[in-house]
Parts: sequence; structure tokens; C-alpha cells
Amino acid sequence: MKRTTFFAIAAGFFLAPALGWAQQSGATHTAQEEANRQTVLAFYEKGLNQKDADAALKYVGNRYVQHNPGATDGTEGFRKFVAFLREKFPKSHSEIRHSFVDGDYVILHVNSVREPGTRGSAIIDIFKLENGKIIEHWDVVQPVPETAANSNGMF
Amino acid sequence: MKRTTFFAIAAGFFLAPALGWAQQSGATHTAQEEANRQTVLAFYEKGLNQKDADAALKYVGNRYVQHNPGATDGTEGFRKFVAFLREKFPKSHSEIRHSFVDGDYVILHVNSVREPGTRGSAIIDIFKLENGKIIEHWDVVQPVPETAANSNGMF
Repeated sequence: MKRTTFFAIAAGFFLAPALGWAQQSGATHTAQEEANRQTVLAFYEKGLNQKDADAALKYVGNRYVQHNPGATDGTEGFRKFVAFLREKFPKSHSEIRHSFVDGDYVILHVNSVREPGTRGSAIIDIFKLENGKIIEHWDVVQPVPETAANSNGMF
Repeated sequence: MKRTTFFAIAAGFFLAPALGWAQQSGATHTAQEEANRQTVLAFYEKGLNQKDADAALKYVGNRYVQHNPGATDGTEGFRKFVAFLREKFPKSHSEIRHSFVDGDYVILHVNSVREPGTRGSAIIDIFKLENGKIIEHWDVVQPVPETAANSNGMF
């Protein structure tokens, strides 16, 4: 199997759930909106799962305005976070459950698991893009509780 | 001032920031998407701010699937939550900082303050609509911390 074919298939497995959800949303998106979605999904996969900050930062524009209160601003803050994951939680994995697009914004609903087999956290990320590159990030993070008042799950 | 005029002005104040943001997103939305946004904003204002569950539930369809782990399923769970706010946090207020729309989905980025003068929580809500009515809800909630590693704020 050629490497490009392999990557195309691997990307398909990774992107299929998010795209499936998108197709269910009933929306018609512009080509730029879909490109923005793919950019954010690739950024997340490279940075948070593969823990390759350099590869992820290719999707970032001339600034990275950070609103996560635990992270320092800019691309250096992102590098530090990826290095932290690589050192402390090398098996951590973020599964993207839903993705949404709205103009310059991409929103991800994610189950982030730092130690395999644990419930992890629910995260909703908002990314702003400019000229097809990520320039700003907000998120909200909540641990998935052991028990819940309903049986629907957080995702 | 006639009551309808007052409500129109009040709604304008309430909706303007969210609409302003939407206009900045660079997206073109369908009339149904904009209607969905207005439905969710009205639901939030009636339920969470005015604490009038009956008025809010007029925007809900034939079911209300709840994914917030602290809330019981369905419209009864929502009624209980509104009653809880009314009794325990009558001055609580949710300020919608950003809103996004994607087909059947509306996403809100909210600063929810239970006691005036406190930092409150950052919340991102995802609502799914069907035939213009809300039928499902997910959210992620995180207290706004006293200090942060960057000076950009959570919103």
C-alpha cells in the first residue's frame, strides 16, 4: 500500500464520524467552511493525538490567541501543552464526537481521555480561522462523572 | 411604552451581541438556521434568565433529550432545574457571549453567573432542533478560574 493511500484511508477512519455528524446537520456548507473543518480536525489529530506540535502548527496562522485559562498564550503555549501530554500522558487520546462549522468558526465536541480506560473529560472547543488558518481558541472542559441523572451520556 | 415595544427593545438588547457575533462569522445562514438561533436564544432567556419554564418549553418539541449529567431527562428535568434556580439562585444570569448555527444545531458560548458579582462558569451548549423546535441538549461547564495563564479571558 502506498503511503499516500494509507494516509487517505487512515484519515477516512478518523474523519468519518465527524463528517457523518456534519452530514446529519442538515446544513449546506461552503467549500471554505469544509476546508476549515478539515484544518481543525488535522490540527487536533496531529497535535493532541500524534503529539507532534510542529505538524499541528502548520495549520496555525500568524497568531494563536489562547483563551484556555490553563495555557499560556500563543504557539509556545501550545508547544508546552503538547510536550506536557507527550511526557505525562503519552497514551492520551481525544475522540472527536461531533464537529460543527459556522463561517470562520469550527466547533468540536470531544471526549478527551488521558489514561486509557478512564472516562476522561468532555470538551467543547471553538476555533476561529482566518484565511484558512487557525488563529484563536476557546474551550470548556468538564470531567465525565461516574454517575449521571440521565442515561444519555455526555455525548 | 407599549408592552410589545418594550419587549422588542429588550429582546434587541439581549440578542444584539449574539447576532453581532454571528454577522462576524463570515457565514451565510438559511432562514431556518436563523430561526433556530432565535428559538434557542428565546428558550435560554425565558428559561434561564426569566426562570419561566412554561414560556421556555414552548420552544421545545415532542421530546427533550438531556445529556447534562446533572439533570434528569426530558422536560420535567428542565422544569426542576428552572425551579432550582428560582429558589436557590433567583438573581442568576446567563450572558450569551457567542452563538453559532450549523443546520439543525445551535451552539451557545455562555457566561453563567449564579451570584451577581462572581466570575461564574463558562458553558458551551449544543442544541439540536427538529422542525424548528429544540429536541436535544448537550453542554460542558467549567468554573471561570480566579487566575489564568494568559490575559485573554475565557470568552
